[in-house]
Amino acid sequence: MAKLNENFLKMPGSYLFAEVARRIAAYSAAHPDAKIIKLSIGDVTRPLAPAVVVAMEKAAAEQGTFEGFHGYGPEQGYLFLRQAIADHDYKARGVDIRPEEIFVSDGAKSDCGNIGDIFSVDNVVAVCDPVYPVYVDTNAMAGRAGDYDEKTGFWSKLIYMPCTEENGFSPSIPKEKADIIYLCFPNNPTGAMATREQLKAWVDYANANDSIILYDSAYEVFISDPALPHSIYEIDGARTCAIEFRSFSKTAGFTGTRCAYTVIPNELVRDGVKVNTLWNRRQCTKFNGVPYVVQRGAEAVYSQEGHAQIMENIAYYKNNVKVILEGLTAAGYQCFGGENSPYVWMKAPNGMGSWEFFDLLLDKANVASTPGAGFGPSGEGYVRLTAFGDAQATKEAVERIKALR
Amino acid sequence: MAKLNENFLKMPGSYLFAEVARRIAAYSAAHPDAKIIKLSIGDVTRPLAPAVVVAMEKAAAEQGTFEGFHGYGPEQGYLFLRQAIADHDYKARGVDIRPEEIFVSDGAKSDCGNIGDIFSVDNVVAVCDPVYPVYVDTNAMAGRAGDYDEKTGFWSKLIYMPCTEENGFSPSIPKEKADIIYLCFPNNPTGAMATREQLKAWVDYANANDSIILYDSAYEVFISDPALPHSIYEIDGARTCAIEFRSFSKTAGFTGTRCAYTVIPNELVRDGVKVNTLWNRRQCTKFNGVPYVVQRGAEAVYSQEGHAQIMENIAYYKNNVKVILEGLTAAGYQCFGGENSPYVWMKAPNGMGSWEFFDLLLDKANVASTPGAGFGPSGEGYVRLTAFGDAQATKEAVERIKALR
Repeated sequence: MAKLNENFLKMPGSYLFAEVARRIAAYSAAHPDAKIIKLSIGDVTRPLAPAVVVAMEKAAAEQGTFEGFHGYGPEQGYLFLRQAIADHDYKARGVDIRPEEIFVSDGAKSDCGNIGDIFSVDNVVAVCDPVYPVYVDTNAMAGRAGDYDEKTGFWSKLIYMPCTEENGFSPSIPKEKADIIYLCFPNNPTGAMATREQLKAWVDYANANDSIILYDSAYEVFISDPALPHSIYEIDGARTCAIEFRSFSKTAGFTGTRCAYTVIPNELVRDGVKVNTLWNRRQCTKFNGVPYVVQRGAEAVYSQEGHAQIMENIAYYKNNVKVILEGLTAAGYQCFGGENSPYVWMKAPNGMGSWEFFDLLLDKANVASTPGAGFGPSGEGYVRLTAFGDAQATKEAVERIKALR
Repeated sequence: MAKLNENFLKMPGSYLFAEVARRIAAYSAAHPDAKIIKLSIGDVTRPLAPAVVVAMEKAAAEQGTFEGFHGYGPEQGYLFLRQAIADHDYKARGVDIRPEEIFVSDGAKSDCGNIGDIFSVDNVVAVCDPVYPVYVDTNAMAGRAGDYDEKTGFWSKLIYMPCTEENGFSPSIPKEKADIIYLCFPNNPTGAMATREQLKAWVDYANANDSIILYDSAYEVFISDPALPHSIYEIDGARTCAIEFRSFSKTAGFTGTRCAYTVIPNELVRDGVKVNTLWNRRQCTKFNGVPYVVQRGAEAVYSQEGHAQIMENIAYYKNNVKVILEGLTAAGYQCFGGENSPYVWMKAPNGMGSWEFFDLLLDKANVASTPGAGFGPSGEGYVRLTAFGDAQATKEAVERIKALR
């Protein structure tokens, strides 16, 4: 008899964003006149940059000609894109990453999940709490998380690193030995950022223990403070212990266009084997590359024109986050994150729970948020607000929340 | 210490197509004047249909507007595409497949590999021999294949079903109990096709043993004989035992545009769990959907205009396969497949080995083929020829091979 992967059967039912969508839909149905403003979902709203659109149109037209037709491309991505990434995202910041260390993919979510393929099931995995659910769920599916405890919300085999007001939402290095450590800065959901010194401590820990850091920097374009690192490879020693995930989703509005990349330095070796080689084998066997038209679109992000256009969008979102952070703080709410991130981590007042505050914001202000508890037990008592909406609507949402005080 | 997936370390080194490419490159370097014709790689050469190009250009332009912008889409694919697939690929052939049973993806290779995520490592897997390497390699990576024997070319835990001249390249039902069975018709690499009666025997076996058939019909558009089934779901009982993989790669020239889909009927249940639900959870957690522009391109394949255009390309390739099959057969070579497939399975004359014949064809006719032994031990003594090239070049290649007699 065909047997299913029993780890899937251990997973708790509803997914956070589905439950948020369900509650919003139910509220809308009951209050058809309510004008709900969504500060809940992390999807961008501004269109693709004109330079990207032109590049994609041109590439689509090429695909319609004998001379310009591209069939199977390299599984790792075309050199034109890998070179552009190496030059602009790394070399320009003084970091030496070679094209053969870069793997272009359809999304950071895919890569963060699929990377587990190349690791043994026996690894001890550490995650932040609260955390982007994909890190936890993909490890649960692979059998690395153990069993789920409905009461606590914890999986038995994972190491949870609380990120709380007390530690400034920066995880402490765990006392247990962690083999694989997921870090995400700027952080989703708390919006916190790590300093060079904090990352250096992680790199030293990983090198001392032969651990591997899975570093998700999908939101690096939102870093405003010039002293902060955009890449883990800006930290000495990271090339022997870290894999980095990046995405065009938030940087260039590619959430519906799908392009991202993963970096695995040649010096990252475990059991005498180059991890880059293993990932290459995985990708060549289970993946066939990103559409040619999409890779041409991503390349255009690095043109002078394209870069200027995407940075205008980022400035727009950054202004939204400023409006949220300053407005709510001035009104007496406690808010974190936001300065180097599109996310504001808002504390529910009066010891309210996450879902309770979510319901209150939805009902009294017609503002949708994301309950922090959905990201893990330490997210209880917070909601996540996002800056990806319309500026006018964001302003209006902030005014409505202020009026609740 | 971070531990790697040791199953990766068991895998034999070089990948078939890489070795083929290496030998061609080496020959070219040594014989710079040789005009090599490649009947080796299964990539299409004709451009995208004009209707597909127009749809993609339009979608790219939409992505540049506020009104038309699409961010994250449904992980399963947009309904417009799932509905078109259900109507044209199934309903039109009298098969009832609902959109919620269809999962749009970036490729059949990805799906054939990733599907393993939802199955236990303990399943006994049966594959044809010769076989599309991805089925074997992805199971090896997951630990379902056991150990590799360099001498025999077999993995210890897989059931191999020989497809030989004796059985007409149609696998016999194994004596052992197989939990998961990979079938591919029209077959890659042999070009063989299964009759309704043969498929019915497989469906009955699977239902009797609670096995699951993974049915790869990526080449169904090449079926010429109207009596042959295009989908496993044309066979009674398949809805309770089969998953089907389809692709736009060969149908519509999407090898570099990336779109495919997987069908999991609601009635496919194991351990009391709907397999569809498990795959949905997998996709929502580790995948973020296919680019909007690509889905609009795929939709255009089903328009009246688009359909006519892609069928012109298919007719072109079908004519190539006819030229190969008839030409070589008339010259006294033994050839199989080809009638309902873009692949011709050519027997090496005089008991020659696959690689020996490959080298001979390359050296004496300057024609590149793919050695059958690369697809599995029973492929020894054959080479695979493909019909995806230019018509004139294909004719020329056939003339050159004929001249060797």
